[in-house]
Amino acid sequence: MSNETRPVDPAKCHLLLNHGPVTLVSAAFHGRRNVMAASWVMPLDFDPPKVAAVIDGRGFTRELIDASGEFALSVPFRRIARKVLAAGSISGREGDKFVHAGLATFPASVIGAPLVRDCAAWLECKVIPEKRLQRRYDLFVAEVVAAWADPAVFSGGRWHFPDTARKTIHYQAGGAFFATGGPFDCAEG
Amino acid sequence: MSNETRPVDPAKCHLLLNHGPVTLVSAAFHGRRNVMAASWVMPLDFDPPKVAAVIDGRGFTRELIDASGEFALSVPFRRIARKVLAAGSISGREGDKFVHAGLATFPASVIGAPLVRDCAAWLECKVIPEKRLQRRYDLFVAEVVAAWADPAVFSGGRWHFPDTARKTIHYQAGGAFFATGGPFDCAEG
Repeated sequence: MSNETRPVDPAKCHLLLNHGPVTLVSAAFHGRRNVMAASWVMPLDFDPPKVAAVIDGRGFTRELIDASGEFALSVPFRRIARKVLAAGSISGREGDKFVHAGLATFPASVIGAPLVRDCAAWLECKVIPEKRLQRRYDLFVAEVVAAWADPAVFSGGRWHFPDTARKTIHYQAGGAFFATGGPFDCAEG
Repeated sequence: MSNETRPVDPAKCHLLLNHGPVTLVSAAFHGRRNVMAASWVMPLDFDPPKVAAVIDGRGFTRELIDASGEFALSVPFRRIARKVLAAGSISGREGDKFVHAGLATFPASVIGAPLVRDCAAWLECKVIPEKRLQRRYDLFVAEVVAAWADPAVFSGGRWHFPDTARKTIHYQAGGAFFATGGPFDCAEG
C-alpha cells in the first residue's frame, strides 16, 4: 500500500484540514522520531498558510517538536484507522512508535519530520515561537512551508474520494471514528 | 422544525467538536446580534473545557465578541446547510443576519449570545482575554461555561445520527460540504 504525492498550492492548503479530519502529528530530532494522533488541529490563516494544533505537554512528540521547531501533519486514509488508533494509544519513548503501530513513512521536502504513508494529504510545518501559548495551553501556531496531497483523492482544490478505503476520517472517542461522508453542494442547487 | 436540548457534562463537551464539524458562531451586545459560519474551531482542553476559534477581525460578529467577551457555538444539522452557507456569505452590519439567513434562535443559559435552532449541539463560551493572540492571529481562546446537545443525535457521550437531515456537516469550500459519514469502531474488532 502506497500512494502518490503532488504539491498543493500553499494558499490552498487550508482545504486539506477544513473538513476537520483526524491527523497524525510527526516530529524528529537528532535521529529520534515519533508520531501521535491529533484531532485538535485546524487552519489558522490562508497566506502565508498557518495552522494551530494542540500538542500534549507530556508526550514524546511534544519533546521532539520543542527541540526541532518543526512538525508534519499527515491526514490518514480510513484503511489505516487501526494504526492511527494505535499511534494515539501507545508511547513512543520506549522504541519507534512508527514501527510499533505499523506506520510506513517517507521523507518530507523541507522539514526533518517524516511523513506517513497511506494518507490523503500532508502539511510540513515550522513552529512560530509562541512560548507562553505553548506552555499555558499546549497550543502551537505554525507556518505551513510545504503541502502535498494524493491526486487520487484531492485535486483542483477539491476532495473526491474514489472508495471507502481512501476516505479521510474523523475521531469521536474510545476508538470510534466517522468516515468523511457524502458530499453535497449548497451553491449549486 | 425545532429540537430538544439536554445538558452535556462540561468534561465531555469536547466530544461535540472532536469530529471537526462546521459551526455557527453567534454573539450579541446591547441589543445587536450576529452569526457567522466557522470551520476553524477546535477543542483546546478537557477540564475546565476550552475551545479555540478563529474569528475574522473585520467581521461584525468579531466586534460583538470583542465588546461582550462571549460567543456561542452551534453545530448545525445538514437540513440547514443552505442557511449556514448564507450566514457565511452575507454581512450582519446592515440588518439582522439571523432573519436574512432564516436562522431561528433561542436563548442561551449563561451568556447573552443566542443559540441557533435546528442544530445538534451548542457550546456557550466566555472569552479568556488573550489580546495579543486575538490581534495577531484572530485566534480566540474561550472557556465553555455550558453545553447542550439534542438527545436524538448525541447521548451517553456518543453521536448517533438517526437520519440524513440531522447529520452534522463539514465544510470544504465554495458551498461544498460533506455530511458526517459512516461510523466505525477500531477498538471493537
